[in-house]
Amino acid sequence: MTQHTILLPHEEAAMRLGKVHDLMQDTGVDALLLGSPANIFYMTGRVFNGYVYVAPDGSLTCFVRRPNVLDGPATIYIHKPENIPAQLESHGIAAPGSLALECGLSSYATVMRLAKALGVQTFADADTVMARARMVKTADEIAAIRACAVRHDRIYGMIPRLYRPGMTDLELQIEIERATRLEGSIGILRTNGDDLEINMGSVLTGENADTPSPYDFAMGGAGTSPALPLGADGTVIRPGCPVMVDMNGCFNGYMTDMTRIFAAGTLAPEVLDAHALSIEICRAIARAAVPGTPCADLYELAVSMATDAGMNHRLMGHRSQAGFVGHGIGIAVNELPVLQPRSRDAIAPGMVIAVEPKFVLPRVGAVGIENTYLATEQGLECLTHAPEEIVELPL
Amino acid sequence: MTQHTILLPHEEAAMRLGKVHDLMQDTGVDALLLGSPANIFYMTGRVFNGYVYVAPDGSLTCFVRRPNVLDGPATIYIHKPENIPAQLESHGIAAPGSLALECGLSSYATVMRLAKALGVQTFADADTVMARARMVKTADEIAAIRACAVRHDRIYGMIPRLYRPGMTDLELQIEIERATRLEGSIGILRTNGDDLEINMGSVLTGENADTPSPYDFAMGGAGTSPALPLGADGTVIRPGCPVMVDMNGCFNGYMTDMTRIFAAGTLAPEVLDAHALSIEICRAIARAAVPGTPCADLYELAVSMATDAGMNHRLMGHRSQAGFVGHGIGIAVNELPVLQPRSRDAIAPGMVIAVEPKFVLPRVGAVGIENTYLATEQGLECLTHAPEEIVELPL
Repeated sequence: MTQHTILLPHEEAAMRLGKVHDLMQDTGVDALLLGSPANIFYMTGRVFNGYVYVAPDGSLTCFVRRPNVLDGPATIYIHKPENIPAQLESHGIAAPGSLALECGLSSYATVMRLAKALGVQTFADADTVMARARMVKTADEIAAIRACAVRHDRIYGMIPRLYRPGMTDLELQIEIERATRLEGSIGILRTNGDDLEINMGSVLTGENADTPSPYDFAMGGAGTSPALPLGADGTVIRPGCPVMVDMNGCFNGYMTDMTRIFAAGTLAPEVLDAHALSIEICRAIARAAVPGTPCADLYELAVSMATDAGMNHRLMGHRSQAGFVGHGIGIAVNELPVLQPRSRDAIAPGMVIAVEPKFVLPRVGAVGIENTYLATEQGLECLTHAPEEIVELPL
Repeated sequence: MTQHTILLPHEEAAMRLGKVHDLMQDTGVDALLLGSPANIFYMTGRVFNGYVYVAPDGSLTCFVRRPNVLDGPATIYIHKPENIPAQLESHGIAAPGSLALECGLSSYATVMRLAKALGVQTFADADTVMARARMVKTADEIAAIRACAVRHDRIYGMIPRLYRPGMTDLELQIEIERATRLEGSIGILRTNGDDLEINMGSVLTGENADTPSPYDFAMGGAGTSPALPLGADGTVIRPGCPVMVDMNGCFNGYMTDMTRIFAAGTLAPEVLDAHALSIEICRAIARAAVPGTPCADLYELAVSMATDAGMNHRLMGHRSQAGFVGHGIGIAVNELPVLQPRSRDAIAPGMVIAVEPKFVLPRVGAVGIENTYLATEQGLECLTHAPEEIVELPL
């Protein structure tokens, strides 16, 4: 009745651990203690309650609290983190000299408790190491993301059949959520950051697309409650107004991001032009993003193309503009690198990046596309294959 | 085009602020800085990105980053928390002597940044103050929770019509999610704690109900992915096996919790007995929970009734048992008080508590009920009114 703690194939687990250990050595950290679901999933292929410890010699130990059915060579059950030092000693695992903890992912109370439990006065930030390790995906991760994209494409292909004339943005979103769950989504999107809240994505149409939100996502929207003021607000989808669908599914622990535009009836030329410009920007970024290209330059490329078209004041919003045009994605919906002016990252093969140069047209809605791309030696390879042109909805 | 920052009625906002300020004085804290969505929502009636500052004189100021459309007497826009001290000074608002920050809700990095920005060397924990303020609900909060219960009851009434013979637990859950979203749920459940992940609840049947999970919820389940090993796993719902539905909706920022059992065909007598025992325990707790009753005693009452019936080894699980039988609920799904042995809280009028003494029957499933109750002078008033008996599903 027991299950192996480490679900990753042996070589895959070793490769991820090796990447993490190399980055630890680069940053002068000799041990790492990880407790966040996302990082535990990265290191082991499953979520458990407890900690992954990477020792100075680069070995990995799973300290598990729950579930009480895991087993395997690197598995030690504990009741609480205060048990870790004695377990390290009795198993002959080196204690940390300098320790890194998840300073941005764990609460202050958790970090202080772990530092005290491990007997360290000072500690480094494990998030930097882990974010950089996860920024460049392994072949297995890329395969998992490709598998997500296939399912994501399939769901977007269903959208015209999920739509019924007279529907609100929210009603359409709920049908997409259902289709996404039936396709296997776990129903949550993991985010990095204390204050990013979202369920499974966003559908925006009409004036609501121009409503600023509290969240640092690409687009806003009023939502249906001041308790989660984001996205669809119950606006009836009207002919001539584009419907921006940015719905997401986490099918196997990994995600792809994709945005497409749907519309019933004829759209104004300026709407079509803005959409075409978004596609052009995506393609230009995909071509330009050869290894070594600064991510900040890719942001500037988008701004410069939007400026040339007289559309910069509507790029990534209008009443409120987001300061990026793309972001890494994988286990969390917002990973490194970020295509933004202050990014210091450069494109490297194996990065997976969602590019989303969108435009908000006041009173009409939002247009543009988002694709998830894999960085290769030749530029970005598009993983999300739903047709990029505006998809017709029945009148 | 601007919106008032504080959506609560004036008297309601003043009452919540007064409760918080009283608790600050009790704990020797003279200022509070809150950034979590849940606490900002509690203090203002909306979620924004920024901070709520409670000054030593008990006044409230909203430091807002996003959305860029809020306005009102207590509203000051900032770009970053480092701007707060200068704004306090220029607005004549007292700077903190002793400051409390959200140590369990904010990341270590966030707390350290805020402490540095506000120029404090040491700080207290705001979570204790806020959790205690939120533990006893105001009349407006109780009204919001009652409104949730009405919608929650309505959805549970639909479940027999959502069920089709041959469905899996997950397929039924997805139909309930859809109905809950159409009823107005925002689609996320806020939780307290670094490591509690859930989408909208849980449906459990058959052997899966006995699968231990990593999460500290009442029940387990394998889920469909090691990325979120919780709840429904795709088990086909079979005649004779109870289906435990513990699905939740956050309709207005507040929640109720309710569990009911559904079944097709005849259930074994031991299943019916365990379910009847859960109802009896709920009623006994509701009667016993007069003001002043220690929450630990209510836990012991459940254990003692289960023990008398020879069912203590199946209370709150079997292969893995949860150590509580109830919990506060409101803006988050797990608030104070907790009905557990180490609780130091006593029942007070205005508390809202979900009571869920459940039993796991190996290979069969889980039975029992959960109701959300309001603590009154006379004991607990049940707010969730769906019939408690096992509901028949079509064969």
